Amino acid sequence: MRQENLTMLCDFYELTMGNGYFLCGNRDKITYFDLFFRQVPDEGGCAIAAGLQQVIEYIQDLHFSAEDIDFLRSKGIFDEAFLTYLKDFRFTGDIWAVPEGTPVFPREPLMVVRAPAIEAQLIETYLLLAINHQSLIATKANRIVRAARGRAVLEFGSRRAQGASGAVLGARAAYIGGCAGTSCALSDQRYGVPAGGTTAHSWVQMFDTELEAFETYCRIYPQNATLLVDTYNTLKSGVPNAIRAFNHVLKPMGITQCGIRLDSGDIAYLSRQARKMLDDAGWTECKITVSNALDEFLIQDLLLQDASVDIFGVGERLITAKSDPVFGCVYKLVAVEDARGNILPKIKVSENVTKITNPHFKKLYRFYGRDNGKALADYVCLHDETVDDSGAITIFDPDATWKKKTIYNFTARELLVPVFRGGELVYNSPSLPEIQAYCKAQMATIWPETLRFDNPHTYYVDLSQRLYDVKTELLLQAAAAEN
Amino acid sequence: MRQENLTMLCDFYELTMGNGYFLCGNRDKITYFDLFFRQVPDEGGCAIAAGLQQVIEYIQDLHFSAEDIDFLRSKGIFDEAFLTYLKDFRFTGDIWAVPEGTPVFPREPLMVVRAPAIEAQLIETYLLLAINHQSLIATKANRIVRAARGRAVLEFGSRRAQGASGAVLGARAAYIGGCAGTSCALSDQRYGVPAGGTTAHSWVQMFDTELEAFETYCRIYPQNATLLVDTYNTLKSGVPNAIRAFNHVLKPMGITQCGIRLDSGDIAYLSRQARKMLDDAGWTECKITVSNALDEFLIQDLLLQDASVDIFGVGERLITAKSDPVFGCVYKLVAVEDARGNILPKIKVSENVTKITNPHFKKLYRFYGRDNGKALADYVCLHDETVDDSGAITIFDPDATWKKKTIYNFTARELLVPVFRGGELVYNSPSLPEIQAYCKAQMATIWPETLRFDNPHTYYVDLSQRLYDVKTELLLQAAAAEN
Repeated sequence: MRQENLTMLCDFYELTMGNGYFLCGNRDKITYFDLFFRQVPDEGGCAIAAGLQQVIEYIQDLHFSAEDIDFLRSKGIFDEAFLTYLKDFRFTGDIWAVPEGTPVFPREPLMVVRAPAIEAQLIETYLLLAINHQSLIATKANRIVRAARGRAVLEFGSRRAQGASGAVLGARAAYIGGCAGTSCALSDQRYGVPAGGTTAHSWVQMFDTELEAFETYCRIYPQNATLLVDTYNTLKSGVPNAIRAFNHVLKPMGITQCGIRLDSGDIAYLSRQARKMLDDAGWTECKITVSNALDEFLIQDLLLQDASVDIFGVGERLITAKSDPVFGCVYKLVAVEDARGNILPKIKVSENVTKITNPHFKKLYRFYGRDNGKALADYVCLHDETVDDSGAITIFDPDATWKKKTIYNFTARELLVPVFRGGELVYNSPSLPEIQAYCKAQMATIWPETLRFDNPHTYYVDLSQRLYDVKTELLLQAAAAEN
Repeated sequence: MRQENLTMLCDFYELTMGNGYFLCGNRDKITYFDLFFRQVPDEGGCAIAAGLQQVIEYIQDLHFSAEDIDFLRSKGIFDEAFLTYLKDFRFTGDIWAVPEGTPVFPREPLMVVRAPAIEAQLIETYLLLAINHQSLIATKANRIVRAARGRAVLEFGSRRAQGASGAVLGARAAYIGGCAGTSCALSDQRYGVPAGGTTAHSWVQMFDTELEAFETYCRIYPQNATLLVDTYNTLKSGVPNAIRAFNHVLKPMGITQCGIRLDSGDIAYLSRQARKMLDDAGWTECKITVSNALDEFLIQDLLLQDASVDIFGVGERLITAKSDPVFGCVYKLVAVEDARGNILPKIKVSENVTKITNPHFKKLYRFYGRDNGKALADYVCLHDETVDDSGAITIFDPDATWKKKTIYNFTARELLVPVFRGGELVYNSPSLPEIQAYCKAQMATIWPETLRFDNPHTYYVDLSQRLYDVKTELLLQAAAAEN
């Protein structure tokens, strides 16, 4: 099942610029754009890249229908020759990207696009939207999963998501970040994110008594009976009735696995009490699921209070990344080719220093220690540089160039892999469980100091000397041009 | 153009409960659900309802495909008779809702559903998702529009939206809340939200000089030349080059209308300086658009600093409602019908007092002063009560029943209007500009004290005496059942 065609999900200026490039002779000019972000959400030390699969499907499906072109014509500002050109519009360029599930850091390219100007410009919005959204949720989910310290985290947030794709693709991204499943049926059907669920309060209210509601549910789903125990009073009514229902219905069947869910009240206290009541009644295998506006900080706090929880259901604060709901990838021109195919680096200067871009067509390496497998630093260099990892390499902080570090005994891995070449897909997409496993393995290479929530250690993302020199030269040129 | 089929965008528990209702004889039980929220985002005093049109399209399109049913069968937990029932599944119930653009308040029903249990349960997630998402963005947009005090606000956030529908429907909701337009081409094509846009930094970088980039743009779009002036240096290069381009290209054509856009730096200072430079050069009609992570507070602050701004472009903080990105509507069972058609009210008790629901099938009135047209209070009563607005009415605070208020000289308007009757659409959807105009007119009936950002006055949402009595009785019954 594929998503709807999203070619028109662009910013209108991409169309007006496209028309402009077409008319002023820049139509076939080859351009290079980098997609990168400047800050990890929640002041974290590390983000997780996600959304590439949706970019791939979007690029493959990129085309303007006759209806789209009629709509554009109605605006009265597009040249008829440009509209004719759009009829056969396809993406013919190259795209490199870091695989989904890769830990990533500020100011390094997550994606590089090389294409004729109009094509590269037109895909800007959707590329940003897809990568921003899923990287945001994968990163947030991973924080929550780490806070849960081995307990399962389920994504429960569809109803509070910002739109349908926010829910469905948000559940996909949450799974990449380490969630065990989702409540969203469509995410299971479309992407294979395991969906499950128990009951709402309405199930309990629909029956004359809570006990009747519980027993009926246990009879229908004896293998998967998780009962919501907080409709009336958790400890006085909900848990005792759940135990009665388990005793009446499950015990005669020899079933020992079951569950309860707490969705309100003091979860730390109620879960401990419920655990004791269940254990005393012999239901030691009964799992306790809790939900109710949880996030990584509340989960950390619940575990500090010895809450007795087996499964966390996390809703609105995960599916919207509530504490910091924007992942700020930008898409910036870094080079153009002249008529002879020479690559001319480009820079965007800004009065906000952090908005200055890294120019040129680039590569991204990650260095891992051979002894401990840990990620030591990332290294951004020009496209025609290679790193020799048989010896040592000295890197430096591009913002404080006197800070140097020499790295020995390392392996260098290129993070950007070819995805499209000349408009053709050249990437074998891994399955979603493979992406989740890759993410878990790669996150294990990041030092805990970089992953902690408060004041994380800043991971090194350094520039090669040649790249640094190109950047400095362009900044000096821009400054000279002003005066 | 219609959205994709979203029948499977439900929480899995709605399907397991549906199967359960089917098997335990509750299949045809008539149920009543209220959709309501508990808190205005950003500690505001008033929210704006939106998203009904997407609910209507969803309900009309509700059906399970053979593929959907095969997927459910593969789960191994659904009864074959239930799966057969799903083949012909349609919504056959009634829905009442407040029209889009209506100012709404906590704990009053925005939507009431009366339908057989399985149907009412299955639509829960999408109804919540659609209303939560668009009400969130319409409410946030309206705050930003109010802060701009008459200046146009454009929605620029597609690239930072949480998924495709977050962008496209977010732009629709922002327009309802008062935005003048969007950058999103698909929102224009699909929903008629006026789309526009200028250029990105890449346009400027693509040319050898900034001046050449500006002049080329002015030649291609002389009627709509808004130039982005911060690629290199706003005041030393961008604005002077923009003035040169206007002089060289537009002046000979006799064009006086044009624009510049500032996207970084100190907007207050730069906009004032740019205004002076433009005015001194005779470009007094040149409009200044500013963008760069704006929201209602920054806009308020810019205007306090006498920033010279004609148009605000607002991106990530609007399209994600960044400061408070969750609208918390819930969907709760409030009544069921017995076999003889008697309506039996239902309540959900909770250890969190604010999670206790208002039971029964209800109506919602708004009282307006006949003298000033202002909204005085909302009034929730039982379905068979009517308000006589020819005399006076005494209302009381349901949380502090000794606080009473008598209202005279008022008109009473029912806010919930019929949308579906017996599964048939009975509502004529207004056009999007009509919704925007209705929202603006209705927001003018809300006292400024309720609309201010800091410590807004709490608007009265009171219960009728009969409704209050039903609620109290059910709470007493629940308490008695525990002991």
